[in-house]
Amino acid sequence: MANQGMKIAVIGGGSSYTPELIEGLIQRHHNWGPLEVWLMDIEKGREKLEIVGDLAKRMVAKANGTIQIHLTCDRREALAGADFVIIQIRVGLLEARIKDECIPLKHGIIGQETNGAGGLMKGLRTIPVVLDIADEVQELCPDAWLINFTNPAGMVTEALLCYGSHHKVVGVCNVPVHMTATVADMLGVDKERIHIHFAGLNHLVHGLNIFLDGEEITEDLLQRLTDPDQQMTLRNIDPLPWQPEFITSMGVLLCPYHRYYYKTKEILEEELVQFQSGTTRGKVVKEVEEELFSLYQNPDLNEKPSQLEKRGGAYYSDAACQLIDSIFCNRQTIQTLNVQNNGAIAGIPYRSAVEVNCVVTKNGPKPLAVGELPVEINGLVQQIKSFERVAVEAAVTGSYEKALLAMTIHPLVPSDQTAKRVLDELLEAHHEYLPHFFSSQR
Amino acid sequence: MANQGMKIAVIGGGSSYTPELIEGLIQRHHNWGPLEVWLMDIEKGREKLEIVGDLAKRMVAKANGTIQIHLTCDRREALAGADFVIIQIRVGLLEARIKDECIPLKHGIIGQETNGAGGLMKGLRTIPVVLDIADEVQELCPDAWLINFTNPAGMVTEALLCYGSHHKVVGVCNVPVHMTATVADMLGVDKERIHIHFAGLNHLVHGLNIFLDGEEITEDLLQRLTDPDQQMTLRNIDPLPWQPEFITSMGVLLCPYHRYYYKTKEILEEELVQFQSGTTRGKVVKEVEEELFSLYQNPDLNEKPSQLEKRGGAYYSDAACQLIDSIFCNRQTIQTLNVQNNGAIAGIPYRSAVEVNCVVTKNGPKPLAVGELPVEINGLVQQIKSFERVAVEAAVTGSYEKALLAMTIHPLVPSDQTAKRVLDELLEAHHEYLPHFFSSQR
Amino acid sequence: MANQGMKIAVIGGGSSYTPELIEGLIQRHHNWGPLEVWLMDIEKGREKLEIVGDLAKRMVAKANGTIQIHLTCDRREALAGADFVIIQIRVGLLEARIKDECIPLKHGIIGQETNGAGGLMKGLRTIPVVLDIADEVQELCPDAWLINFTNPAGMVTEALLCYGSHHKVVGVCNVPVHMTATVADMLGVDKERIHIHFAGLNHLVHGLNIFLDGEEITEDLLQRLTDPDQQMTLRNIDPLPWQPEFITSMGVLLCPYHRYYYKTKEILEEELVQFQSGTTRGKVVKEVEEELFSLYQNPDLNEKPSQLEKRGGAYYSDAACQLIDSIFCNRQTIQTLNVQNNGAIAGIPYRSAVEVNCVVTKNGPKPLAVGELPVEINGLVQQIKSFERVAVEAAVTGSYEKALLAMTIHPLVPSDQTAKRVLDELLEAHHEYLPHFFSSQR
Amino acid sequence: MANQGMKIAVIGGGSSYTPELIEGLIQRHHNWGPLEVWLMDIEKGREKLEIVGDLAKRMVAKANGTIQIHLTCDRREALAGADFVIIQIRVGLLEARIKDECIPLKHGIIGQETNGAGGLMKGLRTIPVVLDIADEVQELCPDAWLINFTNPAGMVTEALLCYGSHHKVVGVCNVPVHMTATVADMLGVDKERIHIHFAGLNHLVHGLNIFLDGEEITEDLLQRLTDPDQQMTLRNIDPLPWQPEFITSMGVLLCPYHRYYYKTKEILEEELVQFQSGTTRGKVVKEVEEELFSLYQNPDLNEKPSQLEKRGGAYYSDAACQLIDSIFCNRQTIQTLNVQNNGAIAGIPYRSAVEVNCVVTKNGPKPLAVGELPVEINGLVQQIKSFERVAVEAAVTGSYEKALLAMTIHPLVPSDQTAKRVLDELLEAHHEYLPHFFSSQR
Repeated sequence: MANQGMKIAVIGGGSSYTPELIEGLIQRHHNWGPLEVWLMDIEKGREKLEIVGDLAKRMVAKANGTIQIHLTCDRREALAGADFVIIQIRVGLLEARIKDECIPLKHGIIGQETNGAGGLMKGLRTIPVVLDIADEVQELCPDAWLINFTNPAGMVTEALLCYGSHHKVVGVCNVPVHMTATVADMLGVDKERIHIHFAGLNHLVHGLNIFLDGEEITEDLLQRLTDPDQQMTLRNIDPLPWQPEFITSMGVLLCPYHRYYYKTKEILEEELVQFQSGTTRGKVVKEVEEELFSLYQNPDLNEKPSQLEKRGGAYYSDAACQLIDSIFCNRQTIQTLNVQNNGAIAGIPYRSAVEVNCVVTKNGPKPLAVGELPVEINGLVQQIKSFERVAVEAAVTGSYEKALLAMTIHPLVPSDQTAKRVLDELLEAHHEYLPHFFSSQR
Repeated sequence: MANQGMKIAVIGGGSSYTPELIEGLIQRHHNWGPLEVWLMDIEKGREKLEIVGDLAKRMVAKANGTIQIHLTCDRREALAGADFVIIQIRVGLLEARIKDECIPLKHGIIGQETNGAGGLMKGLRTIPVVLDIADEVQELCPDAWLINFTNPAGMVTEALLCYGSHHKVVGVCNVPVHMTATVADMLGVDKERIHIHFAGLNHLVHGLNIFLDGEEITEDLLQRLTDPDQQMTLRNIDPLPWQPEFITSMGVLLCPYHRYYYKTKEILEEELVQFQSGTTRGKVVKEVEEELFSLYQNPDLNEKPSQLEKRGGAYYSDAACQLIDSIFCNRQTIQTLNVQNNGAIAGIPYRSAVEVNCVVTKNGPKPLAVGELPVEINGLVQQIKSFERVAVEAAVTGSYEKALLAMTIHPLVPSDQTAKRVLDELLEAHHEYLPHFFSSQR
Repeated sequence: MANQGMKIAVIGGGSSYTPELIEGLIQRHHNWGPLEVWLMDIEKGREKLEIVGDLAKRMVAKANGTIQIHLTCDRREALAGADFVIIQIRVGLLEARIKDECIPLKHGIIGQETNGAGGLMKGLRTIPVVLDIADEVQELCPDAWLINFTNPAGMVTEALLCYGSHHKVVGVCNVPVHMTATVADMLGVDKERIHIHFAGLNHLVHGLNIFLDGEEITEDLLQRLTDPDQQMTLRNIDPLPWQPEFITSMGVLLCPYHRYYYKTKEILEEELVQFQSGTTRGKVVKEVEEELFSLYQNPDLNEKPSQLEKRGGAYYSDAACQLIDSIFCNRQTIQTLNVQNNGAIAGIPYRSAVEVNCVVTKNGPKPLAVGELPVEINGLVQQIKSFERVAVEAAVTGSYEKALLAMTIHPLVPSDQTAKRVLDELLEAHHEYLPHFFSSQR
Repeated sequence: MANQGMKIAVIGGGSSYTPELIEGLIQRHHNWGPLEVWLMDIEKGREKLEIVGDLAKRMVAKANGTIQIHLTCDRREALAGADFVIIQIRVGLLEARIKDECIPLKHGIIGQETNGAGGLMKGLRTIPVVLDIADEVQELCPDAWLINFTNPAGMVTEALLCYGSHHKVVGVCNVPVHMTATVADMLGVDKERIHIHFAGLNHLVHGLNIFLDGEEITEDLLQRLTDPDQQMTLRNIDPLPWQPEFITSMGVLLCPYHRYYYKTKEILEEELVQFQSGTTRGKVVKEVEEELFSLYQNPDLNEKPSQLEKRGGAYYSDAACQLIDSIFCNRQTIQTLNVQNNGAIAGIPYRSAVEVNCVVTKNGPKPLAVGELPVEINGLVQQIKSFERVAVEAAVTGSYEKALLAMTIHPLVPSDQTAKRVLDELLEAHHEYLPHFFSSQR
């Protein structure tokens, strides 16, 4: 990773998100020397890869960037000698997501791609593939940092840290960036002036303290969130407003995903209404994706189209590009990342993944010590971490019993009977992508 | 606590359980020297106290026991110089329990006296009274052991350990004794031949390993529990049978209360059916109690009537009498008790209460080191312990916000909106017994 | 390990201690059914084995015991199907011990068989042999409990727990038994009336609380120890009296070995005087041993000779026989043993060995939770545990660098230069017994 | 602490170090707005205060700085409304230090101002005074950061964190800065290119990993240190060279103070030679101080004289000024500081002080998570932390027994008898500065 330049491999390069990533790289690459970006996708995704790749090349050209874009379906070629490997795959594509959403709803429980039954299934499909990639990274570019975007990012990072062969691993999520930006918007200030002490797990992260220009404003901000007009500003992340007294008694800023646990009833009702009307988030996304790809094909398009923001992944590429820049240039910035806990949060195993503020240097991210989580949030964090650990064990071993155990102990699954019914139907539906669950041992 | 005899004070002595306690004391008191038992109750309960007290005296007479039974409504008189203080009160009587069951059900959530919304309310009513008793114990009989039966025993013991002025405190529950007896029944062996390594929290305890004559039989026993015919035997504790694969994948013996968390849906449905038909467990118990007291009044009755077993508290007095005997006679027996964790279970605060196997000597119970709980059970245990800690803080401070927080983070409460509605209605219903929630600060 | 009898294998059966062990077995074996004892020693020790074995047979005959004594130099024959395996070997015999004492003293530092430089060397010689035995136990009698007497028992148990293939392992030491007996003597009471909460490491154990008939007497006892006349009573364990204010401010009962750390100067001076006069403890012991073996050869001797008590190992066999009895008969007694920590003492790794009160059942010993050690003693305990962990790593790997590191960080070794000089001379002196330190890697 | 300027109070402002501090403030103050510096000293030190204060004013004038220098003997005046409070006092002056050095040496043990017997005494004298200052800070400038330079900085920071009334506290030491600079010198590179992961305690800090331009070079650097010619470069910190194999087997960079523990014998011999020739470090420093003050009086001197570097405190003011700047300007720099552990280092209490890399923002320093210390260093760190905790308890309570306990358990004190003799003589010698040890309770 010398200063003579950088090679980035993007696994799942045909993703509709790629233009945002390319935009981020264009903005920063002048600090890095010559940059090669290898967009890699599976054979089945070659068409999308070419559409996205061509747009990427036009974007670079327009910006007079010195980035070489390579397209390949050969993963080993993409990885060989890379400095950074970005994983943004979707095993089973959006079709699988739609099943993860619909089958649980059919049984009366929440269906969502990173939480509960759906999150478990996405983990079971994704983890074996990501562990294979880690093996190849260890073989072909052992000094590379592996940056994972793929959800459920908490489980995937846990699997890479505890069962993977390559340990230079970071999980990236846009939620903390988004929360910071939202707070800045609420206050009408530039987001660089806001700093938040984040701690928790992926999609279960908490702003423990919030600062404006270095002065703590946590209490004021939470008070402000209890005002229904002010809550409007957050509604684009979390349309269901929190109970005001709950916000202030909680004392920390919750992330949007917390509503799955503290508004289970209302969310489920909403999802069921949508489901009965024939729509789910996955179907919406699928339409957005189709629209995006038809835009991307326009040979006159040479920048990220504004429609991509509807897709929901804003700030992802920003977080990733900032991380790459911080590592490559040894910048000592603070970012909120999924890394090995190593004692940063009390009561979570040292080896496990947590989402926490880190200082990023050339040696990668180092978490800041958080100490004990406030008792109010510790219980749910511990419960989800226990679920994730069992789920990862299921994914790695292909054990039906472990998968059932993970499903049953998840707080969004209301009974062992429901767990079994939903699991059995989901396993059958995803048969193709779960080969290790369908070998001899069952 | 010299060998010249023993004084036991029973706070809530007018309880329908008292005859079982008296029976246990009669069986064991010959080892202890002269025994005085002071049954104390509040003025409002004087009639019941006299009924129960008279029966107790007849039981002693019949057994030719050397026990003096005293009846009083003066708590200080009962406590003065006691060696053991047993707390078995019910603040608000069964009327309050019925509200704890019905109001949550009205809002579509589980209503139960030791878990969830109902358990929280019972804790809020009970803890201030128990802390007052502890203050008096510290003043009037500072060497006494305080033995608590009152539910929610986990929260109450937590409160005594973390906020009480008297630290010789043990919480007793009949669940582990019951589980051991049930396993023995299943195997058709005497219960002394069964030994179980229990660990967890009150009403959330797990049999980590099960032994017959010292040989581990955990796996066989769990396998046996998957057979529907064998499950019959357990049905009197847990009428809803577990999913067989869940039993074996869990790998530990769950307690009956686990079904509130892993069969939430089925239990709720069942409770709602009963509720709509106008009955709840509290109402059933109330009828049983009335029947019992009419039996107790019979001047010819001079032993514990068999009908008491319907009441559901079997083994309580056995556990308490064994504990008293073990402490007084320094017996080094192993019992499952609610005590200060002190590192026995990893990841739970050292000061907090846990339910765990202890060696009991004259110096009271010392927990055996459990180490890390299996990951499968750690999440729920942590979540309930966090809930209990917040709930105890609410009970001690009378803070509405803390009470709302406790309600919302409980896993059986499905949303912050529901939490507020249920809490507000319950607070109002229990107004009389929650004076600290209705002073100036609100 | 069914009730049809028991087989005990004694590795190092030719030891002069064996008659005490036989005496203990004779006293207890009637509870166990038919008993076979296999005394095994190496070829070089065959003569001693036969002398001791013949005495053992005469002892059994005199007592009309139903014990079969077998003598063998074939370790596999001794182990096959054993229920208990006792290790009481001495790699390099007393000659090696004398070197462990003399060479450090030559360099001006304490030379002692279980602490400091000498203890390290004994560990390096012993651990590989004990790990080999554990492999054979795992192969030939996988259900057996391995009971280790061999010093340094802390390091050896650490090695067995962290690097051994057989995990049913207990380390036994006579120090806690001895301390209890001494306290009883001081008070003129029977030792069954004294109970002490012990915690720490082998040869670094502390009586945290002391009880007489279950009443705590710690403070009184420590006060009594400050009286020079009362200290007389302890002088046979610890001839150098402690500074009175130190005893009371420490607040816990120290073990005799603590004087190596808190009386380093006086002990070293005393040892140097003896060393210069040509004597060390090892030489004294060697003479005692020779005397013992000449006694043992007397065909009229048919009981343990009183001279054995001079040897210094009193209570060892008592501790071991009590342990065997407790396990075999599932007795739930409390004994102080070297076992896996598993959270019993805060701040020591869960896998590491500690010496702590345990409840002993058919499933072996389970430690009682101690929690945090008093800050006064925590520092030295942590330091010795860190030393032991590095020393065990050196023993297992044969790494010269790790051995040097262990030597240098030991608190009785006053400098890195001294450490190297002493280590080099000791390695050379023990060349024959340290083959893994003299292979290619150095 | 608004941008309208800054007030710094320097308690012990008459110190000979002050010119270095002034130099550092002159270099940086342009970022801060108007700056007031209040140099405060006790009445007895008024003459020195004026000499140093006048020099400070001349330095500011020469540099055209906008700093107002105030001199006062009224501590409350100095503190009122301060933004930063620097403590650099020396209770008992150099006379006391000389006693701390000489009395232990008289008894044959190391005498040094921050370690062992001398360090303990300096702590006992200093801590009550510093806690009084903290009370006044809390009263008069509750938002101020209290920055402590006074040794023994580990104990003083521990006392402030665990017993002080003001919690915005940081301990600063020049050792990590010095080590970084020395590594840079060895490699012939600028010190900004070197980054070291430091962790441990004050004066017992370790460089766990060493980086050059972000690439890890730990192993190479340790290898280089084994070369006697390369060790020359470090000799100005640590003139006694380490045993080469010890350096590499240790695997981390030790600080100069480690030689008190791993070269105890050689250091003691060297100190005894100096002591017998009538000199100690304290006496040397006293002469240097006298020379410095005569220089400072020269009205033509208007910059820090180069002779100050002989004094030994180089980099102190640099560390402090960088810290003030980082906090005031919210810079997110990484500095090695003494702060509350909060889980950063495993096995040390959350409340205790550790010396560790921190990110410094407007909210002060936050430690990076270190996790478990390497086993090789954990033992000594735990031992010294235990000593510090007992020593602080002695300082706070004035308990003779706790002081004796602290003295006896320190690894540089070789016996309980020596501990008592040395303690008694030191207490007597420092009678005037230890009023709480000479009140009724003794």
